[in-house]
Amino acid sequence: MKAGVTARDILAAAPGPQRRAIAKAITLLESTRADHRARGDELLTELLPHTGRSFRLGISGVPGVGKSTFIESLGLYLIEQGHRVAVLTIDPSSSVSGGSILGDKTRMERLSVHEKAYIRPSPSAGTLGGVADKTREAMLVCEAAGYDIVIVETVGVGQSETAVAGMTDMFVLLQLPNAGDDLQAIKKGVMELADLVAINKSDLDPDAAMRAQAQITSALRLLTQQGRERGPWQPQVLQLSALTGDGVDRFWQAVSRYRELQGAAGAIEARRKQQSRAWMWERIESGLRHDFRQHPQVKARLGHLTAEVEHGSVPASTAARQLLALWRAHP
Amino acid sequence: MKAGVTARDILAAAPGPQRRAIAKAITLLESTRADHRARGDELLTELLPHTGRSFRLGISGVPGVGKSTFIESLGLYLIEQGHRVAVLTIDPSSSVSGGSILGDKTRMERLSVHEKAYIRPSPSAGTLGGVADKTREAMLVCEAAGYDIVIVETVGVGQSETAVAGMTDMFVLLQLPNAGDDLQAIKKGVMELADLVAINKSDLDPDAAMRAQAQITSALRLLTQQGRERGPWQPQVLQLSALTGDGVDRFWQAVSRYRELQGAAGAIEARRKQQSRAWMWERIESGLRHDFRQHPQVKARLGHLTAEVEHGSVPASTAARQLLALWRAHP
Repeated sequence: MKAGVTARDILAAAPGPQRRAIAKAITLLESTRADHRARGDELLTELLPHTGRSFRLGISGVPGVGKSTFIESLGLYLIEQGHRVAVLTIDPSSSVSGGSILGDKTRMERLSVHEKAYIRPSPSAGTLGGVADKTREAMLVCEAAGYDIVIVETVGVGQSETAVAGMTDMFVLLQLPNAGDDLQAIKKGVMELADLVAINKSDLDPDAAMRAQAQITSALRLLTQQGRERGPWQPQVLQLSALTGDGVDRFWQAVSRYRELQGAAGAIEARRKQQSRAWMWERIESGLRHDFRQHPQVKARLGHLTAEVEHGSVPASTAARQLLALWRAHP
Repeated sequence: MKAGVTARDILAAAPGPQRRAIAKAITLLESTRADHRARGDELLTELLPHTGRSFRLGISGVPGVGKSTFIESLGLYLIEQGHRVAVLTIDPSSSVSGGSILGDKTRMERLSVHEKAYIRPSPSAGTLGGVADKTREAMLVCEAAGYDIVIVETVGVGQSETAVAGMTDMFVLLQLPNAGDDLQAIKKGVMELADLVAINKSDLDPDAAMRAQAQITSALRLLTQQGRERGPWQPQVLQLSALTGDGVDRFWQAVSRYRELQGAAGAIEARRKQQSRAWMWERIESGLRHDFRQHPQVKARLGHLTAEVEHGSVPASTAARQLLALWRAHP
């Protein structure tokens, strides 16, 4: 079955068959079998000329902040405006919990059945590097299929926010209107990634939401470094209620202003180039580390040398040179 | 001449000859010649059993904050207390400016001529990784020579604060008593590395110094994540005047409390083990990247593929796999 998916199935097809083709393509790309990988690379290269025309929006926030409700509201709003919306999830913990397929579809009941939406849960591949890699590729498939808004959502486990900010055009942080939540985000270094902070559930306690907005606004001013690579956009904070839908239009207006301002300044294109380069090198370095650790002579010495380095009987620089010498001597 | 330096010259010698031996050893370790490197490794391994008994103090701060004046005050104070003090500098920009030997010696006039002090400027080796590597090795030589306090100073160029925090037992940030300075440190992610923040020149404007102390104290509470690896110590902020010497004793009391508290909890030992492991892997990865970039087949393809990845005609993951395949096929 999987063997059957071609670029044509994804590029031009009726919604139903296309969605099945996308699912097959993503499954192919997630496979670790060498022949699948080779066919996946081929497919991806064929699709690539048709990618890059969507807007890539990263959304993060702690569990309970209302991400799914917000993404469903936003997705339905965007479809109403004529867009097609893909939602991908990065959750490195899903390989432990056994995947989040059911979870995602249940969470976004109305969006998941809409023919102009495509929702794909986190790959259960294991490491964040692997999960992020698969999600980037899935994003390209969705773009080629004509989804012009791709939302990459993360639950904020480990470094997943950095991964999402590193593959999207704009990174949005959802916050709750209580103090403490923003401090956590600052601590974790997530706040400084945010191009926009949206305070959800602001209707529940308008005063607290106003305070949070003021606090986060000054924190953002403090934390965000402007620079050529960041472009002219100044990070903003706004309030909304995903449940009532109030503020979703204002949210999208802000996103559109971002897109216009950053696009005109070439900042989105520059960000994408930098992301692609970084992605390539991250994959190369991960491959080199893997090869190194699997190298028989290195493997035989690594544990012992690490212990000696920790114990302080061999200098770390000497140990590194010894291991590299083994690696170079036995190709 | 360089050939002549042995572990014995460093371990047991009169102050004069010992200082010359240390200088020779460090020069040997900084050499890039393969035979020097081999002899340097040997020497370092011989010295290693005699290292690790000093306290390693990292000090950073922007130009003009008064680092040299402070380190001279502190160094002379420590010598008075019976210590021997080594001061090493990390400044990746010194390879551009042509080294800072004269600068350092002029800056710390009284300390540099003291027989119980040893001052070594930044190696002018180029990259931060290389400079940091040499400084770590120089630190081990000084420890073996019996310097029981090693101060590693940095001017805060690029990521040099992270490098210094990654090779010392305690990281101190010197700040000026004006707002804005602390915001810069928070922005750059340096504040969260600090175990102690000292506000220098606090006598010039006591009110501003008090305000800065309060601000930085709350920023530290916000930014510093406690955890097992950080130990029981809570980062502190204090005021001093390096010029008058006021507060230098309080500074050292705080350092001593840190050492006692963190030492008893095993946090210093744990930090050193983690630093050694990280140092080894950083050197290994740097070596792997170097090998990879120098690999003839990779070199021939890298520029073209990078351009294609940036342009969006080859997926980054595919490019990485292609380059890794070339690398593996032609050992």
